[in-house]
Amino acid sequence: MLMTGRHTPRFTMTDGGLPPGLWLIGLGPGDLGLMTADAIEHARACDFRFLEGYTATLPGDQEDRLEGLVGKWKKAMRPMVEDPAEILSLANENSVALLVVGDPMQATTHVDLESHCAEQGIDFSVIPGLSATSMAISLSGLQSYRFGRQVTLPFAYGEYLPTSPLEMIDSNYTNNLHTLVLLDLDPTGMGVETPQPMQPKQAVETLQAMFEKLVEHEGGVRESMTTAITNWDAVLLSDLGTSDQRVASGDLEDIAKLTGGRIHCLILPAKFTGLEREAYERRRRQA
Amino acid sequence: MLMTGRHTPRFTMTDGGLPPGLWLIGLGPGDLGLMTADAIEHARACDFRFLEGYTATLPGDQEDRLEGLVGKWKKAMRPMVEDPAEILSLANENSVALLVVGDPMQATTHVDLESHCAEQGIDFSVIPGLSATSMAISLSGLQSYRFGRQVTLPFAYGEYLPTSPLEMIDSNYTNNLHTLVLLDLDPTGMGVETPQPMQPKQAVETLQAMFEKLVEHEGGVRESMTTAITNWDAVLLSDLGTSDQRVASGDLEDIAKLTGGRIHCLILPAKFTGLEREAYERRRRQA
Repeated sequence: MLMTGRHTPRFTMTDGGLPPGLWLIGLGPGDLGLMTADAIEHARACDFRFLEGYTATLPGDQEDRLEGLVGKWKKAMRPMVEDPAEILSLANENSVALLVVGDPMQATTHVDLESHCAEQGIDFSVIPGLSATSMAISLSGLQSYRFGRQVTLPFAYGEYLPTSPLEMIDSNYTNNLHTLVLLDLDPTGMGVETPQPMQPKQAVETLQAMFEKLVEHEGGVRESMTTAITNWDAVLLSDLGTSDQRVASGDLEDIAKLTGGRIHCLILPAKFTGLEREAYERRRRQA
Repeated sequence: MLMTGRHTPRFTMTDGGLPPGLWLIGLGPGDLGLMTADAIEHARACDFRFLEGYTATLPGDQEDRLEGLVGKWKKAMRPMVEDPAEILSLANENSVALLVVGDPMQATTHVDLESHCAEQGIDFSVIPGLSATSMAISLSGLQSYRFGRQVTLPFAYGEYLPTSPLEMIDSNYTNNLHTLVLLDLDPTGMGVETPQPMQPKQAVETLQAMFEKLVEHEGGVRESMTTAITNWDAVLLSDLGTSDQRVASGDLEDIAKLTGGRIHCLILPAKFTGLEREAYERRRRQA
């Protein structure tokens, strides 16, 4: 019963709704204009709607628009999604939409819902959504096939700061691959109700601290890291898929000075091709 | 003037259209139901519409739907896009939509259009679209952050078959990263009018041939490749984002037996986490 949503013939609104089951519906990265037509139709047609409100959140103005676009909804926070008995018992008899910011299958917890549905014989369907990560790669102007693994940059927890994110960036770089770097949302490491996304300045400081720790640990500077971190090329992508979207390139010293915006990610490029270099220059932040 | 489409206030249909410029608009992977609301609105509002028809194509039934959804359009084949004087001169005075299957910035040729527009002072805007590659990762049930670089598997040209794609897959695998493998569309290597996508059986044979060549070249079997290729785990994703979409897992011997479908891609996983293993088993093809 996997992904029946795109196997079954397209329902028509005159059918009076969807069959019972759980519909994971991607809302896209923020602005509801980036929902797909299928996502809007299916969300409208479901008997019940929940907005998954903890792996990612909508901007406030878009949350206000949601009811007008798809109908009444309730917010589902972490306990309700990770212990989904209530949602699943509802989905046994009704069509239930779980609306997820971005793409609905990127978080482990949603793959887990697929597993619960399979065990309980509940229909499970996915309507995909645009993710901020795929938009970041697209809008950078860099070639998507040249990206290596993505890396998340965590806040330091007290004295503890891993160097593995920097080592993964370096491993991509030495393999001639760009890195998409996601920035941590939770400085406490304990789960926060309201995300506190890492800002550009903090990201550059974190990379610098990792570098110093790595040099100390390895007793020297890797040959691939002889350029000072503040001189590394970077692209900063902020609030993608919202009305405040911004894309800016520059070295990390310049990037660290950029303020404003809520959620950011960074791209740390490997050596550019000619066309990539031009795209990078066009995105240079206006001083 | 980069990406003004998401910087400018949302236009309203009563404004009577969009300002002059080139609008790169993503159609999503195939079914037009996966276009975003913004993409539909902007495509409708443009004065002229071209469907980019050579880096990817729409299924025939969706091409037939397009006019009803967004208005009259013409097809733009390779010469018109790579030598875009006609489109750009039109975009100087009018709002011009270039409709692209998938996401509009994944192909080099579209980044090149950004460059031409910048040189000529023409407004250039992007409305992103869902790509089949991001859907593949999402629908596999595997964790997106565990993917390494993507790899394209080419047809052999006469006697010539590179082993580098297999080596990249192996490099991801030994770094504990999954690989998304795109399959070649052009057995001639010379450019074809109608894509002839590699089928699952051909893909497995190609991997096997690369393996044999690599063993011969290196004088032995790498430790990471001691499992016979036909026993490798794989996920086959076919015609994603269309009404014929299919996701099937199994070893490559089973995958090679799957027929039907037009365009396929493969995922070759690294070691599974527990949740990934379960997702993989749920996708096992019914014998």
